[in-house]
Amino acid sequence: MYGLIGKMRAQTGKRDELLGILLESTSAMPGCLSYVVARDPADADAIWISEVWDSSASHKASLQLPEVKSAISRAMPIIAGFDTSIETEPVGGFGLGR
Amino acid sequence: MYGLIGKMRAQTGKRDELLGILLESTSAMPGCLSYVVARDPADADAIWISEVWDSSASHKASLQLPEVKSAISRAMPIIAGFDTSIETEPVGGFGLGR
Repeated sequence: MYGLIGKMRAQTGKRDELLGILLESTSAMPGCLSYVVARDPADADAIWISEVWDSSASHKASLQLPEVKSAISRAMPIIAGFDTSIETEPVGGFGLGR
Repeated sequence: MYGLIGKMRAQTGKRDELLGILLESTSAMPGCLSYVVARDPADADAIWISEVWDSSASHKASLQLPEVKSAISRAMPIIAGFDTSIETEPVGGFGLGR
């Protein structure tokens, strides 16, 4: 499995709009086992995304899906930056759907 | 929902043993929607845990479950420390089981 844990920052006041875009296409990505989008309660513009994929290839391929490309193009103008991006090797747990 | 993203460090050479303990009881925790345990490929002793709960109360209650208390007591001697611990407010996504 391949995992990503990342923190991104929305333009001021745009976090809820960005959350909405991030949540649009999460159910339609082949090889995606988990994709959780969260607010940071300590940081008004920050969003955490935790992802688990069956492989890094599936993650990479997802970036070419039409709905994901559309979401990225709409999200980019309201993303102020990326604070954290960590690759992980998930080994198991609960909630790894298919 | 209530989320936690944390990085812990195993005693040198004890990561796989610690992973095994962490994975034991992940399917039996009321209110747990997601619990993913991962290796950090860039740090030989590090483990990332991403958790989603229906509430912080469910998370707190889980720490009193006999199987969780047993796991914690066996894990503590091989945990070297906690590098990161972030509380989040998950808003949605994929793989939030029940």
